[in-house]
Amino acid sequence: MVFFIPSSTSDRHVTEAGLKRPDLSRHLSREARARLPNPIKSIWKVAQVKPGTINMGNGDPHHTLYPVSEMNFVVPSIEDADPVQAWRTGTGGQQVISSYKDEPCALSLRTAFAYGAGAGLQHVRDALSDLNNRIHAPPNHAVSLSLGNADALTKCFRLLGDPGDSFLCEEFTFSAMTNAALPLNIDWVPIRMDKDGLVPSDMERILSNWNEATQGKRPHVLYTIPCSQNPTGSTLSLERRQQIYQIARDWDIVILEDDPYFFLQYDLDISSSTVEQYGFTRAMADALPRSFLSMDYDGRVMRLDSFSKILAPGMRLGWVTSNPFFAEKLDMLTDSSSQHPHGLGQAFIAELLGKHGWGVDGFMKWVSSLCGEYERRRNLFMEVFRREVAQTGYASAEVPKSGMFVWIKIHLDHHPRYRRIENSTGATTNTAELMDELFRKMLDCGLVMMPASTFAIADHRVNFFRATFVGTDETICNGLSIFRRAIEDSLALVGTDETICYNVSDVIHTIEN
Amino acid sequence: MVFFIPSSTSDRHVTEAGLKRPDLSRHLSREARARLPNPIKSIWKVAQVKPGTINMGNGDPHHTLYPVSEMNFVVPSIEDADPVQAWRTGTGGQQVISSYKDEPCALSLRTAFAYGAGAGLQHVRDALSDLNNRIHAPPNHAVSLSLGNADALTKCFRLLGDPGDSFLCEEFTFSAMTNAALPLNIDWVPIRMDKDGLVPSDMERILSNWNEATQGKRPHVLYTIPCSQNPTGSTLSLERRQQIYQIARDWDIVILEDDPYFFLQYDLDISSSTVEQYGFTRAMADALPRSFLSMDYDGRVMRLDSFSKILAPGMRLGWVTSNPFFAEKLDMLTDSSSQHPHGLGQAFIAELLGKHGWGVDGFMKWVSSLCGEYERRRNLFMEVFRREVAQTGYASAEVPKSGMFVWIKIHLDHHPRYRRIENSTGATTNTAELMDELFRKMLDCGLVMMPASTFAIADHRVNFFRATFVGTDETICNGLSIFRRAIEDSLALVGTDETICYNVSDVIHTIEN
Repeated sequence: MVFFIPSSTSDRHVTEAGLKRPDLSRHLSREARARLPNPIKSIWKVAQVKPGTINMGNGDPHHTLYPVSEMNFVVPSIEDADPVQAWRTGTGGQQVISSYKDEPCALSLRTAFAYGAGAGLQHVRDALSDLNNRIHAPPNHAVSLSLGNADALTKCFRLLGDPGDSFLCEEFTFSAMTNAALPLNIDWVPIRMDKDGLVPSDMERILSNWNEATQGKRPHVLYTIPCSQNPTGSTLSLERRQQIYQIARDWDIVILEDDPYFFLQYDLDISSSTVEQYGFTRAMADALPRSFLSMDYDGRVMRLDSFSKILAPGMRLGWVTSNPFFAEKLDMLTDSSSQHPHGLGQAFIAELLGKHGWGVDGFMKWVSSLCGEYERRRNLFMEVFRREVAQTGYASAEVPKSGMFVWIKIHLDHHPRYRRIENSTGATTNTAELMDELFRKMLDCGLVMMPASTFAIADHRVNFFRATFVGTDETICNGLSIFRRAIEDSLALVGTDETICYNVSDVIHTIEN
Repeated sequence: MVFFIPSSTSDRHVTEAGLKRPDLSRHLSREARARLPNPIKSIWKVAQVKPGTINMGNGDPHHTLYPVSEMNFVVPSIEDADPVQAWRTGTGGQQVISSYKDEPCALSLRTAFAYGAGAGLQHVRDALSDLNNRIHAPPNHAVSLSLGNADALTKCFRLLGDPGDSFLCEEFTFSAMTNAALPLNIDWVPIRMDKDGLVPSDMERILSNWNEATQGKRPHVLYTIPCSQNPTGSTLSLERRQQIYQIARDWDIVILEDDPYFFLQYDLDISSSTVEQYGFTRAMADALPRSFLSMDYDGRVMRLDSFSKILAPGMRLGWVTSNPFFAEKLDMLTDSSSQHPHGLGQAFIAELLGKHGWGVDGFMKWVSSLCGEYERRRNLFMEVFRREVAQTGYASAEVPKSGMFVWIKIHLDHHPRYRRIENSTGATTNTAELMDELFRKMLDCGLVMMPASTFAIADHRVNFFRATFVGTDETICNGLSIFRRAIEDSLALVGTDETICYNVSDVIHTIEN
């Protein structure tokens, strides 16, 4: 794997062929600057100098009093050729992942059940650093565990954002998270998107036109979801990533790379000879998109990874990769808030990625197999969509390259009651009203998709729905049939109140033949 | 159990014999007021009106793709008469607590591993509400899960504190937490303590003397650790609790009742006939101290409970009990930050407290047994302390009624270099310097206790160490022997550089005979 080195050395902070890192301290919020280290942990840093020291300092229950001696998880065997298919159809093998309090294992429950560092236990951080290095090979970065990307991202907001700051984001974005920054008095500045995601030239335009006298401090943070952007499902090309990174250097921007769907990529060109020779990790690393982290010679990327989409959301574990300076400040915030992630999940991950579990390569085999299953669902969705929906002419969608979402455009100009409205601020339309009507019609028919207005930072172009394709085949077939009926009822002003019952196997049979 | 009803109706907000609740909205921070609900979850509130609705809205992996079908924990059998003794000595039975994805259990892994509400899964909240009701019987309160008390408390700071606010706390307190409020620009106002904890009259004095013109907004929050106060180990009497609650009513104060050591009480009068007739929960509820929550007819108490001390710190689970208005705001903050607690721990707690696990009563039997073991350790500590340390005349300590800590006073006036220093602000001493010297001497000898300066909100009376008594017998005996040597070396200016080796069984034998 050959790594990209930014070609430009024009960044004002960078000398010596781009290898000197910029001063990142200006990005810290006042809150982050004012945070003190935990005084009790500071004492221990002194005290641990001498081995064998007797600890009468801490209020830790002794491990003999933890009422758990062993923890087991029954998981799929990773020996099956296609472990995800074997697991979901119940045809595959299984294995047991075990952690012990008093017997040898990758991470003893004595450690996992004790108080720990906010950044997570070293053993788990090392395993994830290893995974990171094999995929992104980031120069000089540190790994901190998180409780998933919501936890990580909202901590980054507090780390970097002062009241009155403006942050950049995609014009449609994951509003549950951007809303979390609003009570901190951080404003969002939307960057225009097209079908391929964030438009770099629009980011440049916003930054170069920024007037600090009238608009306040120029944005110094970009929040972006580069793969399967939520909600639009778009994935940034390498070219765009390089352009965006260069703009970030030019304007000294920190990039929050929120990438929960990174491991779910489709139409990948995975070399079976690489798998045979070097294993799944190498083969997947060659095929997966290039992350912002992988090109981050400045240390201006904070990358957020999560197990939520590839293991389970209830796992509530992820990891943040960032330069050591930001990592230290992030860990201090964690020590002063949620504290370290739960030992149950850390022990599970340690065993799963360890030599008695799947190992890192087995884990990547699972991920690769998962991509195969989701790709099948995406293909089913797009084929049903083409036959059931697109042929009506009332809606269209791009094929997503990754993740879980299809961004469905409603051709509202076909709507008999669609109209442009002239008002004092210029021409606008009744799009919002008609989309709300359509959303309610769909609800009446028994279908939920997420309306674009839920995700819109600006109030325009809301004639989209975010649909997920990761449900069952039944959900895809029945859902899209209801969807067709609802848009036909709304846009064609013809249709019926009768419920149409579809036989899913018929639909799949039709598609397969 | 008869509950205390506040005798006074003098509070300006309370009419109708104390049963009308005050308006609590004034206590919310600007951040909490500005927080929006998660727009995606709001959509679901609408959508869930109709059962059977097809979900193409969310980005949730389907449960067939969770790579865990079963989770097991090997735990002590609760059938042993003294389960903690049986467990730690390896003489007792064990049982297996199991959760399943596709088989019946208290909380299916399908639910536990999915995204959930920030407040936690209803099943677990109901189990903890039941426990709460049987112990505190709080009127009209809601339970939200937390990731332990650090998570809960720092969320409460953000919920209630605006920049410039002053909060009340004990003059020695858990600085890891009070420090977490400082970067939010919340100041701490220390209330004087004596050997029985926070002095109510000093709280009243501070509030009634408060001058908003010169000191800013009068404190509207009290942070207190009522049982085994950290670091002083004191436990508030019922009389003091009633006085403090009344002062809180008079001045409209919210009480943050941080009570991780609540379940670890010693010298309890547990009625064996109550155990036989009604079980351990009733017997323990009758014997445990009265919480602020139990007397909270106003809804001004936010009570923080944790599994860290009674199960294991790495569990990272606890619960907050508060009035429904604060609970809703807290849950919104959780949805906008850490999100819901991990499913692994929620599933474990659901099974442990469920009918296939210990049940609530078995859990309380474990707690009762744990109190017995910690009481034994406290007694050992105090007896060794009396024989080894107190007899020197250089240190003394009160016997703690609960928790894990002994607050050891160093009689520095015996120190040959102790002196009073006259300076411009009045008389002071070289206590801080001598204590630092003693701390380093102890470190050199291989012992850590926590110096009072680590916990002091004001810079006076730091001639104390916090020592824990919950280590092993060896730790207690050897630690206190080193401690004696260090204080003798420092205060008596006699002693030796030789390391004294103690035979622990000899020490214990001496004590027992």
